[in-house]
Amino acid sequence: MKLTVDERFARPFASEDEIEAVMPEIAAAAAKVFARSGEGAEMLGWLDLPENYDRAEYARLKEAARRIRSDSEVLIVIGIGGSYLGSRAVIEFLKSPRYNELKKDTPSVYFSGDNLSGSDLDELLSLIEGRDFSVNVISKSGTTTEPAVAFRIFRAELEKRYGAEGAASRIYVTTDARKGTLKAFADRAGYETFTVPDSVGGRFSVLTSVGLLPIAVAGIDTDALLAGAACAMRELAVPGSANPAFRYAALRNLFYRKGRKMEILAGYEPFQLMLNEWWKQLFGESEGKDGKGLYPSSVVFTTDLHSLGQYVQSGERIMFETVLTVDSPCSTAAVPYDPADIDGLNFLAGAPLDAVNKAAMQGTLVAHADGGVPNIVLRLAERSEEALGELIYFFEFSCAVSGYTLGVNPFNQPGVEVYKRNMFSLLGKPGYEDPTGRLAKII
Amino acid sequence: MKLTVDERFARPFASEDEIEAVMPEIAAAAAKVFARSGEGAEMLGWLDLPENYDRAEYARLKEAARRIRSDSEVLIVIGIGGSYLGSRAVIEFLKSPRYNELKKDTPSVYFSGDNLSGSDLDELLSLIEGRDFSVNVISKSGTTTEPAVAFRIFRAELEKRYGAEGAASRIYVTTDARKGTLKAFADRAGYETFTVPDSVGGRFSVLTSVGLLPIAVAGIDTDALLAGAACAMRELAVPGSANPAFRYAALRNLFYRKGRKMEILAGYEPFQLMLNEWWKQLFGESEGKDGKGLYPSSVVFTTDLHSLGQYVQSGERIMFETVLTVDSPCSTAAVPYDPADIDGLNFLAGAPLDAVNKAAMQGTLVAHADGGVPNIVLRLAERSEEALGELIYFFEFSCAVSGYTLGVNPFNQPGVEVYKRNMFSLLGKPGYEDPTGRLAKII
Repeated sequence: MKLTVDERFARPFASEDEIEAVMPEIAAAAAKVFARSGEGAEMLGWLDLPENYDRAEYARLKEAARRIRSDSEVLIVIGIGGSYLGSRAVIEFLKSPRYNELKKDTPSVYFSGDNLSGSDLDELLSLIEGRDFSVNVISKSGTTTEPAVAFRIFRAELEKRYGAEGAASRIYVTTDARKGTLKAFADRAGYETFTVPDSVGGRFSVLTSVGLLPIAVAGIDTDALLAGAACAMRELAVPGSANPAFRYAALRNLFYRKGRKMEILAGYEPFQLMLNEWWKQLFGESEGKDGKGLYPSSVVFTTDLHSLGQYVQSGERIMFETVLTVDSPCSTAAVPYDPADIDGLNFLAGAPLDAVNKAAMQGTLVAHADGGVPNIVLRLAERSEEALGELIYFFEFSCAVSGYTLGVNPFNQPGVEVYKRNMFSLLGKPGYEDPTGRLAKII
Repeated sequence: MKLTVDERFARPFASEDEIEAVMPEIAAAAAKVFARSGEGAEMLGWLDLPENYDRAEYARLKEAARRIRSDSEVLIVIGIGGSYLGSRAVIEFLKSPRYNELKKDTPSVYFSGDNLSGSDLDELLSLIEGRDFSVNVISKSGTTTEPAVAFRIFRAELEKRYGAEGAASRIYVTTDARKGTLKAFADRAGYETFTVPDSVGGRFSVLTSVGLLPIAVAGIDTDALLAGAACAMRELAVPGSANPAFRYAALRNLFYRKGRKMEILAGYEPFQLMLNEWWKQLFGESEGKDGKGLYPSSVVFTTDLHSLGQYVQSGERIMFETVLTVDSPCSTAAVPYDPADIDGLNFLAGAPLDAVNKAAMQGTLVAHADGGVPNIVLRLAERSEEALGELIYFFEFSCAVSGYTLGVNPFNQPGVEVYKRNMFSLLGKPGYEDPTGRLAKII
């Protein structure tokens, strides 16, 4: 595997004996995953997805991506939660957080429908002025408010610009295979459709059509991404205390039981920022229930060593860190020589910036461990589709095992509905009346 | 004031009696601030800054901003921590997180020197290809590694492009007024310099030249920003339990004592994201010490209701939320009518999106309070320079009062140095030898 778990900076806080003691629970949780016998097992479609997917749809998806690349300067991806986090994370990790601004021969990819901000929509409309665009709307039901509103707006813009028929050839719908109003309308209107599988929840869907279409449009090798995930799938299917996912799940459950309430995912490259956000949904929605779970937080160092670094070093000891590092250098930039040596850094002249960044990481690992914060290090051999595919599967599988170990159903998210019911009631949506008038009284 | 504290969703978790009981401590902490008699009082320069600043330097700063706007398409701001978070937060809040991508008649503003990523630097270099640019390097000492490396690189690029003299007219240095190698070199080289005041720490420096030069370059009215801060300064100088900063400081200390270990700053507009980051440094570095302090986390809703929402609703009850809302609509966008009504949202057709967003907020306030999470609401009357100036000063003053109430020195950050010492030792910096060889053994 291109991914390894380095426990040296976690070990002072969790002995091998402690890890071994928790391992039977981890193994039992993993057995429930493999046997599909745990709560929510109907949502385990992601488990063998890297090998068991609809080849015909996948071929059609790659063809659609080619078409979008040839006729569009911009792809507007409309989705919320798992319908945008995965593809955005992959594009930013492999290309750049500045992908849209950089020179490239693939379309810009803007994400919409993940909020209710009018100014955000106004800006996106101004960004597509004079540029050919297509839309990929991603919604299992087709009725989620945020993407539905955005789809109304961008569909109207497409129809205004290209006519109903022209618009139809630029709208790609990723939704339920059979049910739902969006599927029915798309079929009537002649939009090309892709599938959100019934057995894959939003936060586990990045390697389905949900994530793969925008990723492919950005020119990323989806075959390699899937191959990486398939590699992890095979490796992590081998039970035992050497299994990297077992170890990660064991350590994080162990730290939780020792009173750590929060896991901070850290990285040293700005291109990791959206991957952190994807990870926060994956673990936060899977584990944050029944009054339990590690709160997922994230940082990008060295940037945030100058904001949250002080707290991590010396504040409440409520967290542990999981640090993701990419072993092979992501750039050949070096520290230039300066005859004036204003900053006294000539001792570093000629040094690869990547080596300086790695020294910052090593110095921080030691500093934070010294400060009483356990650090798990995830080493990714390189910044590549294969490696990222492995990492995605690793996190998904570790999350399932962790959740069962914690004693929750890692595949539901009942808490997400609560604000929606209140919102619909306040907005007067039929069927959401508030007979007691409690909401109106409070607000 | 354009800022008010709405406690309705905090009240079920903190009675008026409880607030009154803690108020004498808050008043004592505030008295230490006003009397400049507490620990770290030498760093209270920000306290009367909105009225007590160097008028001549400020006039020179506005002139420099005009020059940059006239001769540059891009300003590269080089700084880390408080040297970039404040100006970036203000530009994104008042203009847009997409400020650089949108059409505008002011220069793009890119931030560099806040990390050690080579790929980040490579990208920024590619973004200035063929575009005239200037550099504002911000560093009190001039020796902080991240900005120093970036300054080496962009200074070399300027000199290559414009010659030594041309480069000198495009380099603006914000640094110590007298001390330090950067100040000495800037004077020799003929760079225009601005001051990082001795009595203002990085995280409190947004309203000094540190923040104001980039903000002015982006075409933001710095007079109005300072006027807003001055308004807050006058209002918050009146002690008493009606003082909004007293109330915020009282509530957050009360929740902390009741076992809440984390404060989540939430907003409903994507343009708030970097303000959240600025706030995280302000409170995290000020309070996260001596094993104490609220861990600052942040979210942008409704986006993150679909990632961290589940956890906030039903996970561990370790947090409270502080929700920032802008009362007046930030956009006139409305929900379009759709004859097909695919999503069943025609009951909202014609409704301002801002009203839907506000209903989401109200629904979430009720949902999270019902779920056991206290919510403090900060209402900002509008998205304007004046209002944001008030908010900035409100947070700074509340932070000082909160920190003293917590029993820490809110103006130092000793923990930030620990990783640096290890890093320098690993990099072989003279004076940072590791006589025991411990680091080399661990890494």
